[in-house]
Amino acid sequence: MSRQEVISLNEEAAKSLRLGICGLGTVGTGTLDLLRENADEIRYRLGAELEVTRIATRTLEGKKIDNIKHVSTNVFDVINDASIDVVIETIGGYDPALDVIRGALISGKHVVTANKALIAEHGNELFELARENNVALAFESSVAAGIPIIKALREGLAGNKISWLAGIINGTGNFILTEMESKQRQFEEVLKEAQELGYAEADPTFDIEGIDAAHKLSIMGSIAFGIPLQFDKTYTEGISSITPEDLNYANELGYKIKHLGIARRSKNGIEMRVHPTLLSKSRLLANVNGVGNAVLIHGNMVGATLYSGPGAGSAATASAVVADLIDLARHIQSGITSPVYPALGYFEMRNELTIIEIGEIEAEYYLRIPAVDRIGVMAQISGILQEHDVSIEAVIQKEAISETVPIIILTHIVTEKRLDQAIAEIESLADVAGKITRIRVEPFNGEAA
Amino acid sequence: MSRQEVISLNEEAAKSLRLGICGLGTVGTGTLDLLRENADEIRYRLGAELEVTRIATRTLEGKKIDNIKHVSTNVFDVINDASIDVVIETIGGYDPALDVIRGALISGKHVVTANKALIAEHGNELFELARENNVALAFESSVAAGIPIIKALREGLAGNKISWLAGIINGTGNFILTEMESKQRQFEEVLKEAQELGYAEADPTFDIEGIDAAHKLSIMGSIAFGIPLQFDKTYTEGISSITPEDLNYANELGYKIKHLGIARRSKNGIEMRVHPTLLSKSRLLANVNGVGNAVLIHGNMVGATLYSGPGAGSAATASAVVADLIDLARHIQSGITSPVYPALGYFEMRNELTIIEIGEIEAEYYLRIPAVDRIGVMAQISGILQEHDVSIEAVIQKEAISETVPIIILTHIVTEKRLDQAIAEIESLADVAGKITRIRVEPFNGEAA
Repeated sequence: MSRQEVISLNEEAAKSLRLGICGLGTVGTGTLDLLRENADEIRYRLGAELEVTRIATRTLEGKKIDNIKHVSTNVFDVINDASIDVVIETIGGYDPALDVIRGALISGKHVVTANKALIAEHGNELFELARENNVALAFESSVAAGIPIIKALREGLAGNKISWLAGIINGTGNFILTEMESKQRQFEEVLKEAQELGYAEADPTFDIEGIDAAHKLSIMGSIAFGIPLQFDKTYTEGISSITPEDLNYANELGYKIKHLGIARRSKNGIEMRVHPTLLSKSRLLANVNGVGNAVLIHGNMVGATLYSGPGAGSAATASAVVADLIDLARHIQSGITSPVYPALGYFEMRNELTIIEIGEIEAEYYLRIPAVDRIGVMAQISGILQEHDVSIEAVIQKEAISETVPIIILTHIVTEKRLDQAIAEIESLADVAGKITRIRVEPFNGEAA
Repeated sequence: MSRQEVISLNEEAAKSLRLGICGLGTVGTGTLDLLRENADEIRYRLGAELEVTRIATRTLEGKKIDNIKHVSTNVFDVINDASIDVVIETIGGYDPALDVIRGALISGKHVVTANKALIAEHGNELFELARENNVALAFESSVAAGIPIIKALREGLAGNKISWLAGIINGTGNFILTEMESKQRQFEEVLKEAQELGYAEADPTFDIEGIDAAHKLSIMGSIAFGIPLQFDKTYTEGISSITPEDLNYANELGYKIKHLGIARRSKNGIEMRVHPTLLSKSRLLANVNGVGNAVLIHGNMVGATLYSGPGAGSAATASAVVADLIDLARHIQSGITSPVYPALGYFEMRNELTIIEIGEIEAEYYLRIPAVDRIGVMAQISGILQEHDVSIEAVIQKEAISETVPIIILTHIVTEKRLDQAIAEIESLADVAGKITRIRVEPFNGEAA
């Protein structure tokens, strides 16, 4: 049984919280700006001050650090300052962020972090460390920036048994798919533009291969089901193989293609997967475009609720960092000496729930088969599908404009490994000229919203 | 300065919370069902039980009250039961619900209520009573059912100065407008069907005249800006004058018509208003159809975030009631003796912010003018608008199919009372045959989401 997280009472901090910021990049600067800009409103809300008394950042050049008492270039200075109540970790990445968080927790400081990679990959260790040291480790800003999705899942929907959640949780990927669809452009071309616009990194792997989304998904999945963080068991598939043609065929069938993170409680166990997905055009989630984020959560009582907004950016992320600070300040003011919410929402984790292999999931599928335009090829394909008990929901076969003509098939629900066997057989046909593109289709149990 | 709300520590309740339900209608029954259905999951989340030990309901006939220790038909029995920690008020309406809540708070019991009318109209008194008695009065379920919108506004977005919010917060009204638009049906006809389907009451005034929405808006507006509840100052306009023609003209201009509750911080003060509104088709909010609810909130840092889902129903409302219970249980378990969040989110209320008259607001407007099909009428109308400094953004004038032909005008932004003067002059023209339909248009500062 997991023990409850304990938040220590800091008597001196009853009126005002002293903050140390580690890292003045996009999020750190945004947090500092927000605390200055909204100082009045925060004082009305909280009846106290959130005061940044120390900042440590790699370089001081060009940073707006006037009126900050203590400034240095050594991030560990913040941990060693005994007067600091809360360390705000906005360094990003693993090194030295991991050591900063460990050090802060061990020295009895609360930590607020926006670092999704660290929480997803080291959260189990870090939450335990926070518990042992009677301090809080808050991470609202690590998923979907300013959309308060952690609070919604952990607290607002706590009366539910969560059935599934599905989110557009990487703005870069969603921008690329939106541009590809609306302007009929190829993936590589749009990626290059996204890099020029600053939406995508020079090395875009984290975004386009779904690693960033998988970090966020594993955090949400843990809170949804009460299971430990298991980033390494999250299935990840990127968007680089999607073509404008796929987006068009999907559209013809009534769908949009989105890069989704999906966590689902299925009869065999927990599904955790990031991949391109066809979803009905009529859903709000399908109409979240550009760099926006959105998460659709289905609870057994409330049904489906959607949370949408900007999923990145300096001020939007700072909004969530400061929400965590205000939450923490309120709890400290209240004199709490034992936990309110455990980090992942569960008093006792549901360790019996295991994450299943991707081959075990059941879904509907979109197949684009590069067939040679010859009599009988459709009969061969449907014969193989039938042999493997894969039933067909819809087919698009256009007139050939070259020697090969794509056959588009939408299947009914089927176990993935069974479909994959059928695909392998179809690809080995003499009249099929290359790899089959296979995209999962999510009907989301026909639930609304 | 408002004093903080204080939640008392109930030592005995540290492991388990004893609940009394007053009223076994839709929401009360839903809450009882949820607590039974999800008992296991709640135990994992909370490490404790939420146990209903007493129920009082007007009639016991047909109620599923097996296994409940104490059952009666006198709702005050719940208040008089010293063993009860939390009273769940699901009677609805004003009498005896108001006296039940007052009695419960005075006797030192926490209260969870779904009663939007009571909170909107008596909340200032009741929150004060809760404070004086060191107990909590929780009301998440009073707005937008299971969508955790109170928590989002009060806690999740606490780092922001809220600029405005706009919501579809009455499912009945939204169902009617959706049907009118998609099936080109008249208001009265759809209302009758909604009544037959059970979506609308026999007396539909609360829903279609916007009173229910105004209750919810005044609750959200208070939390957004830190002002006392002022339902009586909330401007309310219903949907009964909207015609399928208006929905079509709006569509032609790129808009949908939705019945919105809008709260805005403007340069003159706070706007609080419920009325039909044109909003761009490209917005997610414009695409929330049927009985769904959605609230779009703009914070100065996070930008616009949207919260959407089912806005009514037994299980969806119970989801929010139980979220409040779990929240309360966690705080009691933590031994809190002083407040965490004040009911309306602010330590010190912003009493200097006053709600302005509807004539003082600035908006764009859609006008449908029943003009006689004669040369020169458009010149007369545009002359009057120009005299009042109302500039025109778009005009639709179709060929006449009878003696009168509607002229549709979309104005640029203008103060409402100035526009109303122009409208009165236009209505007095010999070539204008009746009342002008005037619907506000919301560009929402061009903000996304």
